[in-house]
Amino acid sequence: MKDQPSPIRETDDDARKLARVLLRSARHAAIAVLDPETGFPFASRVLVATDIDGTPVILVSALSAHTKALQKDPRASLLTGEPGKGDPLAHGRLTTQCLAVSVERGSTLHERIRTRFLNRHAKAKLYIDFPDFCFFRLTPQQASLNGGFGRAYILSGNDLMIESAANEEIAAKAGEAVRDLVERHPDVAETLAIRLKARKMGSWRICGIDPAGFDMISGDFLLRYEFDVLATDSDDICSNISKIAYSIP
Amino acid sequence: MKDQPSPIRETDDDARKLARVLLRSARHAAIAVLDPETGFPFASRVLVATDIDGTPVILVSALSAHTKALQKDPRASLLTGEPGKGDPLAHGRLTTQCLAVSVERGSTLHERIRTRFLNRHAKAKLYIDFPDFCFFRLTPQQASLNGGFGRAYILSGNDLMIESAANEEIAAKAGEAVRDLVERHPDVAETLAIRLKARKMGSWRICGIDPAGFDMISGDFLLRYEFDVLATDSDDICSNISKIAYSIP
Repeated sequence: MKDQPSPIRETDDDARKLARVLLRSARHAAIAVLDPETGFPFASRVLVATDIDGTPVILVSALSAHTKALQKDPRASLLTGEPGKGDPLAHGRLTTQCLAVSVERGSTLHERIRTRFLNRHAKAKLYIDFPDFCFFRLTPQQASLNGGFGRAYILSGNDLMIESAANEEIAAKAGEAVRDLVERHPDVAETLAIRLKARKMGSWRICGIDPAGFDMISGDFLLRYEFDVLATDSDDICSNISKIAYSIP
Repeated sequence: MKDQPSPIRETDDDARKLARVLLRSARHAAIAVLDPETGFPFASRVLVATDIDGTPVILVSALSAHTKALQKDPRASLLTGEPGKGDPLAHGRLTTQCLAVSVERGSTLHERIRTRFLNRHAKAKLYIDFPDFCFFRLTPQQASLNGGFGRAYILSGNDLMIESAANEEIAAKAGEAVRDLVERHPDVAETLAIRLKARKMGSWRICGIDPAGFDMISGDFLLRYEFDVLATDSDDICSNISKIAYSIP
């Protein structure tokens, strides 16, 4: 085959937003790692959540092939974005190339990630504390977005990070803030689902907040909403959410 | 983390059958390759079909990152098996480690793969003949089956191949054989869908046959059925299919 012109488009804010949503709305991902014995690329499936700074996190068993691989070589990539109906290649997907760092059990970081992970993956409470299970933070280095046929973009790792001095405070107060919001507006999640044209109705709950937006979950569906500008604290996030739910369109 | 006992079970016929079905019923897969510049593992999405001998085949654009990677290093792995409802890790999935070989355009092999691919992916006719599109056969070297939590198996590449002297003849006569079968039994696909408890009803058609079984498709759903023993020719396959559809249970 002859050399071809580059099919990569210039990365704009729409591409960045789509990439963030594809990464932050994933319940699971295909992870590619290097087989520690042969160097073969190895693909498997992992559960995914995001830390408060947007870094994807995975919960894995020490017995799994991908964990052994990451212990030897931290290079990995995550494929996120579900195929949906019709041609699987017509749907957006994102490859995020990352460096994996294991999260020390008992650390403040571990507690924060564990809480955020369980908010998204409630059933993981059955095994999250097993001694052979551990978290890795996968720090994005670069990403390739395919927004559908012929719509390819390259992003930097930073494009997928949430850089805010408020991260720690927001993570610490997130549970309380969401509880207060739901107490004031018991229908807030269902109202958001309608406003945001969710794929299904019923049983929605807010399962994560961060300066860049919020996550809602209903059964197997995760919905990610990105704010136009970063929120400054948890009150600001809840005020943003209320506006999206209740402002007159 | 300490060394753990091996979680790998002994591979039996049930595991082999599950692995074959997970590979042969995939419309798309995550493919892991090696980034040609950095050696980073890279995961992306590809459309998949199978050649007559069970070898998975992918149709890719020369402009894509995975094609450039495979041109430099043929090592790849395919992740197949959809997450389905509930915990994504409760559903079976298969990692097939393969060596990629490109298929020469204009060869008999290319024509056979093109025909089989279009039978499964009818919409690919829009781009299958574009000059920058090509097929790779991905010859399985080894595979890791995860049949759900704690059910892990290692398979050989041969476990996923269909070794039959009848392959060529069956591939050549497949189209005619299926047309004849449907002419005799216009309701055969719908009857099979009911018998095989397909996930949905309506619009099923047989989209592929080989000595080990047959594939049916309806919209986004692909159903793979594996025979108990390899069929000897296309008549034998059609007779097997008729029995499954119409024998008194």
